Amino acid sequence: MIFFRSDYSQGAHPDVMEALIKTNLEHSDGYGLDAHCENAAAMIRDLIGKPDASVHMMVGGTPCNITLIAAALRPYEGVVAPRTAHCYFHETGGVEATGHRVIAMEGINGKLNPELIDRAWDEYEDEHTVVPRMVYISQPTEGGSLYSKAEMLAISEKCRERDMYLYIDGARLGTGLTSPACDFTIRDVAGLCDAFYIGGTKNGALFGEALVINNPAIDDHFRWMIKQNCGLLAKGRLIGVQFEALLAGGEDSIYFRMARHSNEMASKLRAGLEELGLPFYSESPTNQIFPILPTPVVEKLEEEFFFYRWAPEKDGMIPVRFVTAWGTEEKEVDALLARIRELV
Amino acid sequence: MIFFRSDYSQGAHPDVMEALIKTNLEHSDGYGLDAHCENAAAMIRDLIGKPDASVHMMVGGTPCNITLIAAALRPYEGVVAPRTAHCYFHETGGVEATGHRVIAMEGINGKLNPELIDRAWDEYEDEHTVVPRMVYISQPTEGGSLYSKAEMLAISEKCRERDMYLYIDGARLGTGLTSPACDFTIRDVAGLCDAFYIGGTKNGALFGEALVINNPAIDDHFRWMIKQNCGLLAKGRLIGVQFEALLAGGEDSIYFRMARHSNEMASKLRAGLEELGLPFYSESPTNQIFPILPTPVVEKLEEEFFFYRWAPEKDGMIPVRFVTAWGTEEKEVDALLARIRELV
Amino acid sequence: MIFFRSDYSQGAHPDVMEALIKTNLEHSDGYGLDAHCENAAAMIRDLIGKPDASVHMMVGGTPCNITLIAAALRPYEGVVAPRTAHCYFHETGGVEATGHRVIAMEGINGKLNPELIDRAWDEYEDEHTVVPRMVYISQPTEGGSLYSKAEMLAISEKCRERDMYLYIDGARLGTGLTSPACDFTIRDVAGLCDAFYIGGTKNGALFGEALVINNPAIDDHFRWMIKQNCGLLAKGRLIGVQFEALLAGGEDSIYFRMARHSNEMASKLRAGLEELGLPFYSESPTNQIFPILPTPVVEKLEEEFFFYRWAPEKDGMIPVRFVTAWGTEEKEVDALLARIRELV
Amino acid sequence: MIFFRSDYSQGAHPDVMEALIKTNLEHSDGYGLDAHCENAAAMIRDLIGKPDASVHMMVGGTPCNITLIAAALRPYEGVVAPRTAHCYFHETGGVEATGHRVIAMEGINGKLNPELIDRAWDEYEDEHTVVPRMVYISQPTEGGSLYSKAEMLAISEKCRERDMYLYIDGARLGTGLTSPACDFTIRDVAGLCDAFYIGGTKNGALFGEALVINNPAIDDHFRWMIKQNCGLLAKGRLIGVQFEALLAGGEDSIYFRMARHSNEMASKLRAGLEELGLPFYSESPTNQIFPILPTPVVEKLEEEFFFYRWAPEKDGMIPVRFVTAWGTEEKEVDALLARIRELV
Repeated sequence: MIFFRSDYSQGAHPDVMEALIKTNLEHSDGYGLDAHCENAAAMIRDLIGKPDASVHMMVGGTPCNITLIAAALRPYEGVVAPRTAHCYFHETGGVEATGHRVIAMEGINGKLNPELIDRAWDEYEDEHTVVPRMVYISQPTEGGSLYSKAEMLAISEKCRERDMYLYIDGARLGTGLTSPACDFTIRDVAGLCDAFYIGGTKNGALFGEALVINNPAIDDHFRWMIKQNCGLLAKGRLIGVQFEALLAGGEDSIYFRMARHSNEMASKLRAGLEELGLPFYSESPTNQIFPILPTPVVEKLEEEFFFYRWAPEKDGMIPVRFVTAWGTEEKEVDALLARIRELV
Repeated sequence: MIFFRSDYSQGAHPDVMEALIKTNLEHSDGYGLDAHCENAAAMIRDLIGKPDASVHMMVGGTPCNITLIAAALRPYEGVVAPRTAHCYFHETGGVEATGHRVIAMEGINGKLNPELIDRAWDEYEDEHTVVPRMVYISQPTEGGSLYSKAEMLAISEKCRERDMYLYIDGARLGTGLTSPACDFTIRDVAGLCDAFYIGGTKNGALFGEALVINNPAIDDHFRWMIKQNCGLLAKGRLIGVQFEALLAGGEDSIYFRMARHSNEMASKLRAGLEELGLPFYSESPTNQIFPILPTPVVEKLEEEFFFYRWAPEKDGMIPVRFVTAWGTEEKEVDALLARIRELV
Repeated sequence: MIFFRSDYSQGAHPDVMEALIKTNLEHSDGYGLDAHCENAAAMIRDLIGKPDASVHMMVGGTPCNITLIAAALRPYEGVVAPRTAHCYFHETGGVEATGHRVIAMEGINGKLNPELIDRAWDEYEDEHTVVPRMVYISQPTEGGSLYSKAEMLAISEKCRERDMYLYIDGARLGTGLTSPACDFTIRDVAGLCDAFYIGGTKNGALFGEALVINNPAIDDHFRWMIKQNCGLLAKGRLIGVQFEALLAGGEDSIYFRMARHSNEMASKLRAGLEELGLPFYSESPTNQIFPILPTPVVEKLEEEFFFYRWAPEKDGMIPVRFVTAWGTEEKEVDALLARIRELV
Repeated sequence: MIFFRSDYSQGAHPDVMEALIKTNLEHSDGYGLDAHCENAAAMIRDLIGKPDASVHMMVGGTPCNITLIAAALRPYEGVVAPRTAHCYFHETGGVEATGHRVIAMEGINGKLNPELIDRAWDEYEDEHTVVPRMVYISQPTEGGSLYSKAEMLAISEKCRERDMYLYIDGARLGTGLTSPACDFTIRDVAGLCDAFYIGGTKNGALFGEALVINNPAIDDHFRWMIKQNCGLLAKGRLIGVQFEALLAGGEDSIYFRMARHSNEMASKLRAGLEELGLPFYSESPTNQIFPILPTPVVEKLEEEFFFYRWAPEKDGMIPVRFVTAWGTEEKEVDALLARIRELV
């Protein structure tokens, strides 16, 4: 079976593994209070141009989202997000379990915009209604689409106008930043939000995300929040060590190189499918692509390839998702395209 | 100022007050464990034809909704409701504060239907997604519309098919049952759901709702849930005494007579507005009506009448809400109509 | 049966009922936003000498405690309280249901002191431990004991030193203030805490407590918190009307007169029991007394009187609780004493 | 600096690292639904003699505790634990954050017993009080003491009598099972509780614990609970791979050999300190020891050794904690003993 199912089906990039082995017998203090986490945080502050940012090494993306939202909001406040947002759609109500509503709006291609934020406020009245205090967006989105710099700025301005926090889920930030369609930098992202995270899990780490908090109001006692929400790893340095390896070299680090590779593999696959005249379920300039294939083709492909059916069958066609990753080999893409060509 | 603002702007029906005065110096055990609560519960079981139902005397509608939902659901489960539902729109995220998502669907005239319930399930996948375990509807809805018996039955069947609880918010059940458009009885309501409540606050009580639970799985340790959720009144008998007074006489009790009166006042008002050719924001055959009036008319009316603007101005017109109640006098309706006639 | 079971077994003082009847047909805005609530709040600000205090009319004591604590604390913070505190012992984990720990300390005669607060801090370390951010005491305590002014001041100073909030549960504040053992005034109470409430339910109201918040940090969006925690009464004015009646006349109001009467009845009962040489389970200078009676005496008494066994039988003796109230008649006390005299 | 600070200061046992490297480029499904997790679970079921047990690969001990408790309890239920329990003392109120009380009892040498469980029930009354539905113990305890088989059985029987769940925190189960003082087997542990976990983090894993659930009522939708509580690792197989390596060989696996080594190092250290006539803060037959040293000795030691002060200074003496681990070398123990000998 060849995997196009997710960008977390393999372990870590060999450089990451090597760093873990090299530091394995070091003794250090626990829970992220060690030199590797400190160093990785310093590297990140440098990369994003935010010398005062607080950086927390987190185990995964869901812990980032739930902990950040729970830390930022008062009990009667909620977070506005697209209905397809990870924090609404794929975290089993973890945000609600901390007492807060995800105010889900029908997004456009998975994205929010200032009008949708205003619409969330239209539902607000007074002490009988949840206060929409935060905006959550993913960059790129769960469906692979990207916000342009102008779109992010417009949302950021709307947040300032409405006195809302802006939080950006960067589970796949790497492929976002290295997409040919990208017109912003990581410093742009860092500059216009209160918090965001740099995803490791989906870009070559064993696990781990670096959560950056620019707003001290959210950062207050944040480590207490991490602990309470099950996210403080005893051997916290493991995440620091991984980010040291991922980001060594800054813009030229394996973090960016892996993401670029993922995008290239996706581009090749997309181009091949377009050539065949196949329709797409959504526009996605990153490492997820969503072609719509005839049902018999899907069924045949499933014998050799591992991928998701993305939406229910309609008129004999099924939208599927192919995901590429740092470890995807060109020959795997070629094999998939060849098989589809045969079947279509 | 003449009030058409809500059906809870006055105190209680004189018979209710009299019952409270008559029993005032009695001693009784607290927290609803007294003869009046027991007797009121028995009256209700009789009225609804459910000898085994559990009846809890609750302080208000929000406590009914939040406590019932929190008692019925496991932590990863949510409740499907229209986006205009009281439990979504007007309880400041109280359901989420107990850890559960309200899965809000765009209703049709404020109502759910089997297709919308299916659509909520379409969003469900596996351990990454909230399980839609309950359906919440209001009868009549917050916007005054009514489910027909057939519509309720269809929802009830869908719930059985999907293994979901059905809960009916009856804050205004009285005006629902006595509306000319009503084709169901209180026994019908009781027969097709797992729980519902008979609202007192909005139909002539000082406060209090009678929450009926048909499903023993939800009723398990329910009094613990009431206490934990701030809803156990020390002098619990006050609610029992009121429901004894409200329901004495069954179908001919002041409960039904007051509701009928409210509807009649609303009907008169509606007819008068229709005669003037005014448009309506939504169809509502109960004691709330939502005409759309020219902005200057609204502004003038506000000098003498107390009511809500219901939606933002559009094209020089504003949807407003007029609510009638047990204490609304015919001359008040006449005065309102006369003033509108002058202004339009 | 003669009731010595609680101070909430009867309805309201006749003056309270009269005020409710007199205002019954008034129309007013809901949820406590009416002239009666405003007026009652002004009376209270006057009585306590705090012109800037925020006053919220609450349905009961448990809603006061849970809502206040939930509003004041961040998710990783807890409230220090005696193990016998109402918020620990008698609210079914309602505080924990909002996500906060009650840090229960073994009190001394039901009371905290600065050393116990320090001991709670001894358990505190860092991000792995709950931050003890609030102190909760009841005045008088659940067992009827009283803090002296000096004791309250010492706790208040400790709170300031530790940067903790001080909250005082005043469910029975009336009998505390009018106890012969009392050396403080209501202004003293108001002056040394961040929040407290003046209990109505246990001193002649149908229901209702007036929650006073001195600290604006806690008061921020407090009405949102009340609504979310099931505590916002639609006909909120009912509580305002009752407090207007209870407090009319200030220190000479029925509120203080009823409390004084309760204490006098308790004193008479206590004196009579002391004369008989009976031991007491705890020292209580207010309207609850806890004699220890031989088991056969208790069993006989239970045929005519309604009261609680307070602790398990030991050596053939059972601690019981007799509570007097505004409605307790002298002849009832005499009857109880006479019967005990016969039985002992 | 030589570390005696914790048993998680180093990375993983080399065999564990090797297994991770060997499987690194495999593709697999995410979230623990892979062959390694399945295989590790089968190995564990075999080891404990419970063919029907459910085994979940968890990221850490705190997620085990919080998720298990939240899954097992209804909202009004609490868990009885010693005041020194990890779930009370060192999880920042994570249990309370899910809405449940930890009913903390003063344990005896960190342990519960049937009398203490009864005492927790003495505080229970009715709908006003939290229901103590679970018992939480750690084996060995946080202070290093061990329950004997008879003690565990007595607690287990008490739980059955009281209809309570029994959950055993096995963060250091390895050193418990291999302690010279141990009179029980892992099958004994598995046989008398509803759930327990086999700790990896503190015994040679990078991270990860294997949570075993014997009671299907707790296991229902448990993966939903893991996800909601931030504990579902995308590359879940990492934990499976580690447990395969840890437990290969069963009773003769590195898991047991590492634990035995830790205990031996601790025994040597303990014996050496006893020889010097030093007192101990508590009795601990596992890999944590708690000698009481003169303050100047502690201060000097801190220049070369990294360890915790365990309790406040008293009479010029400070209780400290030395922890040994799989990676502790005999020469490190010798060095510590030699230095203490010089200083005392």
